[in-house]
Amino acid sequence: MPVLDNIRIVLVSPLYGGNVGAVCRAMANMGFGELAIAAPRPLDQGEGRMMACHAAPLFANRREFPDVRAAVADCIAVIGTSARGGLYRQHARTLRDWAPETLALAGRGRVALVFGPEDNGLSNEDLALCTQLIQIPTTPEYTSLNLAQAVMVCCYELFTACDCFEGREEKSPEATSELRERMFEIWRRTLLTIGFMEEEKADHMMLGLRRALSRGPLSVDDVKILMGIARQSEWAARHAGGD
Amino acid sequence: MPVLDNIRIVLVSPLYGGNVGAVCRAMANMGFGELAIAAPRPLDQGEGRMMACHAAPLFANRREFPDVRAAVADCIAVIGTSARGGLYRQHARTLRDWAPETLALAGRGRVALVFGPEDNGLSNEDLALCTQLIQIPTTPEYTSLNLAQAVMVCCYELFTACDCFEGREEKSPEATSELRERMFEIWRRTLLTIGFMEEEKADHMMLGLRRALSRGPLSVDDVKILMGIARQSEWAARHAGGD
Repeated sequence: MPVLDNIRIVLVSPLYGGNVGAVCRAMANMGFGELAIAAPRPLDQGEGRMMACHAAPLFANRREFPDVRAAVADCIAVIGTSARGGLYRQHARTLRDWAPETLALAGRGRVALVFGPEDNGLSNEDLALCTQLIQIPTTPEYTSLNLAQAVMVCCYELFTACDCFEGREEKSPEATSELRERMFEIWRRTLLTIGFMEEEKADHMMLGLRRALSRGPLSVDDVKILMGIARQSEWAARHAGGD
Repeated sequence: MPVLDNIRIVLVSPLYGGNVGAVCRAMANMGFGELAIAAPRPLDQGEGRMMACHAAPLFANRREFPDVRAAVADCIAVIGTSARGGLYRQHARTLRDWAPETLALAGRGRVALVFGPEDNGLSNEDLALCTQLIQIPTTPEYTSLNLAQAVMVCCYELFTACDCFEGREEKSPEATSELRERMFEIWRRTLLTIGFMEEEKADHMMLGLRRALSRGPLSVDDVKILMGIARQSEWAARHAGGD
């Protein structure tokens, strides 16, 4: 997504290389490509590469800046994340609320999404640089997310808000009523042949089978499998009896 | 959320204790409490506890089952996760689609959410036990999520679908037009006093200031700060001049 290319993930003084690697993997899963580290501390590079997995190039290409101010200098919007409350954090909103506006901003200029260190989150000084503040929904009992998990939730929200994900599509179309009725006719014949029901109870029994097979949509392939079973069952019953 | 108590997270043969710990933390953040390990392999317990962080009790209380069949035996719905496509995985949907139905199911009985091992995902054998299949939206370039990240996205979707999250609320209400107009009157007087504008250009200049201060909603506290600055600025200008 070209619009996601305009969103920079900024990690402030992360402590653990493994977390930074996991951030890279989450970013790559969700189509983000630009990682900045502000006020870097020494990181375990091996852990970072390992947790980045196939996103190791993203880990290798991370850019380092002396502080948050420098890391976001060219951004038209600076979105901070905060699990803590407090007087100047009350206006935080969720990213699901903010996602459409964030994508619109990213269409006009570069946008930074800023995450504080694992131990303390964003300082008030870094917060002051933020034009927007977001909070990730959690239970009140445990509001502090793992850094990479927090990045994942944010990237996931923005990626899904792009509406660019194409889910799997079943190649087999949904069965029409005509095809389903053909299947039920075959089953009716089979159930009579194998002695599961008698003619006078057939309509009633078939309602039960119809209900069981109509709990969800059936594809043409589903119906073909169910028809095949009925046919084979009838065939086997006739032949077992020395038909 | 009582309904989330009915949802069991099932990990199949996870390889890394750190991942299982991170899963526990994600679950605790999102209000989930029941973790099952199917077909367990030896785990690094120390890594697990460390990554679980404040969710260490959840890590300690995980239940182990010999296989997936046993881990989901009492569940009325078994929801598998799969990043891979394939003939019998085409009907996968996203959890955002499925969340309302999943919560409804969890209101009627126990529901399992099943995640395969880090290296291979769910086998076809485990897949056969699933009544539903979900896929997490990703870019086509990198569809394989870290195990704990996958669990986080799923738990997050279900938690937000509960609609039980109460975001922060600003204690200061939004300013009314009357209050804003009082602020602009004070600013007008101040800007004339300090010589920022002259009377004949005042209306025009004030339109610019009005626009700049109306880009977003202002709270009563915001307006009070802005009024205070204007008043103080006027006072300082008068006193500096030996008024």
